[in-house]
Amino acid sequence: MERAFGTSPRTTVGFGDDISAVKAFKDRLAVLKTDMLVGSTDIPPGMSTYLAARKAVVANVSDLAAKGARPYAGLVALGLPASLTKREIQRIAYGLRDSAKEYRFPFVGGDTNEADDIVISIALLALMSKGEIVLRSGAKVGDIVAVSDNFGSAAAGLRGLLERGLRPNQLPRELAQAVYRPRAQLDLGVRLASSGAITASIDSSDGLALSLHELSKMSRVGIQLDQIPVSEAALRFAGKYGYEPTDLALYGGEEYHLVVTIGRKKLAVAQRAAEERLKPIGVVTRGHDVVLTQGNRHMKIARKGWEHFRRRR
Amino acid sequence: MERAFGTSPRTTVGFGDDISAVKAFKDRLAVLKTDMLVGSTDIPPGMSTYLAARKAVVANVSDLAAKGARPYAGLVALGLPASLTKREIQRIAYGLRDSAKEYRFPFVGGDTNEADDIVISIALLALMSKGEIVLRSGAKVGDIVAVSDNFGSAAAGLRGLLERGLRPNQLPRELAQAVYRPRAQLDLGVRLASSGAITASIDSSDGLALSLHELSKMSRVGIQLDQIPVSEAALRFAGKYGYEPTDLALYGGEEYHLVVTIGRKKLAVAQRAAEERLKPIGVVTRGHDVVLTQGNRHMKIARKGWEHFRRRR
Repeated sequence: MERAFGTSPRTTVGFGDDISAVKAFKDRLAVLKTDMLVGSTDIPPGMSTYLAARKAVVANVSDLAAKGARPYAGLVALGLPASLTKREIQRIAYGLRDSAKEYRFPFVGGDTNEADDIVISIALLALMSKGEIVLRSGAKVGDIVAVSDNFGSAAAGLRGLLERGLRPNQLPRELAQAVYRPRAQLDLGVRLASSGAITASIDSSDGLALSLHELSKMSRVGIQLDQIPVSEAALRFAGKYGYEPTDLALYGGEEYHLVVTIGRKKLAVAQRAAEERLKPIGVVTRGHDVVLTQGNRHMKIARKGWEHFRRRR
Repeated sequence: MERAFGTSPRTTVGFGDDISAVKAFKDRLAVLKTDMLVGSTDIPPGMSTYLAARKAVVANVSDLAAKGARPYAGLVALGLPASLTKREIQRIAYGLRDSAKEYRFPFVGGDTNEADDIVISIALLALMSKGEIVLRSGAKVGDIVAVSDNFGSAAAGLRGLLERGLRPNQLPRELAQAVYRPRAQLDLGVRLASSGAITASIDSSDGLALSLHELSKMSRVGIQLDQIPVSEAALRFAGKYGYEPTDLALYGGEEYHLVVTIGRKKLAVAQRAAEERLKPIGVVTRGHDVVLTQGNRHMKIARKGWEHFRRRR
């Protein structure tokens, strides 16, 4: 798909990063993001239309956050089944409005259509200078790889709902939170970008493994992990229901954390910007593999990511 | 829906016009547009995925054109049924690419999803100064109302396909062209806006009647027409199949012409900018009605527009 479009002199960042950016005025960039939420593959069982709308916003904001960009204005194009009640539609509007407020930008326009399934297609604009933006491509050999949070809670929650037949209220609180009320790390992303300490950054919504592979590919480096950051709630779930915890963390997806690389002497600066929330998990190496190294054991991390589920009807 | 969102100090043009606009840098505006094409309601029988993608672009560009804004960059979010072949998907990409080329802007980013129906959600960015933009709200009593083309061809073509069971190749050429290969009046819109001769402007994609009513509502004026501009092809179709030609022209929709109001002494200036293509059809009056006046007969034009068809499967 992307290859069909080529590139243009206006384009500073095209397809292949979390966002796109075009030259706007002098050295100022217009940063653009679009992400579409589709009911059957993106709305888990038990999620209200209010929270679905919120999730659509979070998915878009998270990609901006990873670049250090604050959303400035948003558009929303909706596809709505004829069967939706007026009240459900209003809940979508409120979900959009409230989450836009949470991330401090206005929705300024939109388009409403009839469709067979709920579709919420959001486009965001951010304005920033060229030097401020952090791409996927800046990681250097020797940099530290770090994450903004532990992984696996959303994957565990989704597996509970989809594979174990749990009802939403049977999910442990942290898993329910991860599935139904994810948050974008906007302030953190902006602070990290302005700290000057991070060299590359990506949002983890397609899963930790794929995020690491994307950083690796776009920066033309390898990554060596010394640990997989698994959340305690995912560990407990994995123990109880017989899942492999590192699989939940690596290949789960639907989590809006940040995965960053930090200049080798800049960890303290980055941690100060991040209020000590970053968890170092490895280093940037030569090559192009993503490997987990523990003692003498080396294990390649597969380049696979989150496959959207299909909601059972 | 729109009322849920309120307004913001950043917003120069919010919901309710063809586009939205936010203050970007000094007096420069970022003009934003999103329009979603949904297969079941927007793709007529016999339209290829290539031309459907083109139509999605035209619908977005046409709204910018009515404001005098050139698209600067585009995003596209796609919902694609799992049943679509790789080739069909490529045709969508080529349709997007070729039509973007036609209107001289690059697609710089996007998002691809699985969905039950084809969904093509486009967002466009344009950059312009505040004084350059022509809104729906500027019409003054005494202004001339004019259109960029005659109406009814697309409506006639769609009725031929949907109500008369005609095959695409049985449609007269002009009707097929109107249905399958609509064009946005981008150069015309930009020239008219820069001429300084037009006071308000709207794209006619929801139909001539609704466009006139929108101009009337947003400018707080009435409109008195002395004629309904019906295309010859629509007239012939109406005669042959027993339709009311003015209904086709007024309530048909799916046509991407411009409907503008022109300062009362500026018709010659506007016509020069438009290469004499404007057709005056009436004047702006006090009040809030849209009326057709012929001799002593006055007829109110109903505020009704194009209802998207549902494709038969």
